[in-house]
Amino acid sequence: MAEPRYQRVAIVGVGLIGGSLGLALKQRKLAKTILGVSRSSRGAANLCRLGIVDEATQDLAKGVADADLVVVATPVGTIAPTIIELASRLGPNTLVTDAGSTKLGIVEKVSQGLAVMAGPPQFIGSHPLAGDHKSGPESARPDLFEDAVTVVTPTTTTSSEAVIRVTELWESVGCKVHSATPQKHDDMLAITSHLPHVAAAALASVTPEEALPLTATGWADTTRVAAGSSELWRDILLANSKAVAAGIESLENELQAYRKALVELDATELQNLLEQGRQRRDALGS
Amino acid sequence: MAEPRYQRVAIVGVGLIGGSLGLALKQRKLAKTILGVSRSSRGAANLCRLGIVDEATQDLAKGVADADLVVVATPVGTIAPTIIELASRLGPNTLVTDAGSTKLGIVEKVSQGLAVMAGPPQFIGSHPLAGDHKSGPESARPDLFEDAVTVVTPTTTTSSEAVIRVTELWESVGCKVHSATPQKHDDMLAITSHLPHVAAAALASVTPEEALPLTATGWADTTRVAAGSSELWRDILLANSKAVAAGIESLENELQAYRKALVELDATELQNLLEQGRQRRDALGS
Repeated sequence: MAEPRYQRVAIVGVGLIGGSLGLALKQRKLAKTILGVSRSSRGAANLCRLGIVDEATQDLAKGVADADLVVVATPVGTIAPTIIELASRLGPNTLVTDAGSTKLGIVEKVSQGLAVMAGPPQFIGSHPLAGDHKSGPESARPDLFEDAVTVVTPTTTTSSEAVIRVTELWESVGCKVHSATPQKHDDMLAITSHLPHVAAAALASVTPEEALPLTATGWADTTRVAAGSSELWRDILLANSKAVAAGIESLENELQAYRKALVELDATELQNLLEQGRQRRDALGS
Repeated sequence: MAEPRYQRVAIVGVGLIGGSLGLALKQRKLAKTILGVSRSSRGAANLCRLGIVDEATQDLAKGVADADLVVVATPVGTIAPTIIELASRLGPNTLVTDAGSTKLGIVEKVSQGLAVMAGPPQFIGSHPLAGDHKSGPESARPDLFEDAVTVVTPTTTTSSEAVIRVTELWESVGCKVHSATPQKHDDMLAITSHLPHVAAAALASVTPEEALPLTATGWADTTRVAAGSSELWRDILLANSKAVAAGIESLENELQAYRKALVELDATELQNLLEQGRQRRDALGS
């Protein structure tokens, strides 16, 4: 029997993303041992009960020792300090990546932290676009990454070996891998992920409670992502504040154009606006 | 065997909504004969081929003659003139309703038109909240109305008999029926249906084409309704322009609050905003 690709995978922060990665690696028999690090004892016990990992611990240092792959899937605000904390325990052959929804701040902080270490592990940022408005390890599923896109974000100092290894990782669980600089990633995701969250939450907020019985699939679809954790999303938006603020401004300008067309009863302009949106939406498919 | 509830139902404008109503009535054996009126000969032939109606015609006057129920499911701009055109062919026991996404303008125009007739049919406006971004009779399905909400919009001059009959109609195909004045309907739907469409289309428009490969379910859900016909939606928005413009303005203000919180890196305010949206969204369920 062939040896599994990974001897020991440590997943730090086992929620929807970390848990699904554990299940996906397990299902494909890609790791000899999968270890989950959870900061609470209740969380760690839960992971074993759910069958997501082979071992679970609260002890970050102990957990990552001897791992050949470490994936940090904690909330965005804690990713960089966690990686810097664990890096001194890892050898130069260990691949470290993350699953954060923003990349520039994380990659910069981690790169600065690792630059002053002797023989640091290989690090490259990742962002699997496989989130969901449901969260937690109970929502984890082995097929979460199938046909999902993962963006990996090398910098000028990232080794090509790290790029190859992280690409193999995400492809092995079913992802299509795109590569972009951390800055480009954040600029793009500001529009494709962070702005939709703001738009959905804002739309939900301006809907009076008494109107909820008169909502249908349109409202439900358009506001769905707003059900996500407000704490997680606060930190994601703050970590990409400039690009998201710019995206919000462009959305405000577009809405203003609709409002002007409506106030002026300008049917031609209104249809132009709608048609532009329809074509952009149709370019994606359902 | 019990007689079906309706002897002859005429559906004028047989797209997604009209077609689904035909299929639903058929499946439940609620009508002896269902007749579809399509303005094109190709459309009429198509309806028979799809098995949506028992008979199809291009001739509005001939089509509705002897009907005990007439449902006009054409685009919003043509509903009122169509009802006024066909009303003179109908007796005072015929129930006429529509399926338009806006109500005030339609109900006012129809009421004015019928007020000058001797023995006009009974009219009451309806809006089944069962649209979809797919359209046309090919997308029709008999279960479209199951658990959907239909808003019926009586005025001070609507007979209670008409209210009872239209309620029976929509309940018989699976709808939950709400009653609201035409004005109240339009104010509510401006926020629960028309504004989400504008938000979705605007969000799609501000997304650069090069960013589309980096979209995931969040963007897909939030923009889904933008795939609807730009012509149909232009007319819906124009028919409810004041309330939709007011809704857009409130959305712009909410977005501005997000932008301010991001520019000022005000984590507390940002989380308050997100939490408010999350709670309103959660009040609905998935």
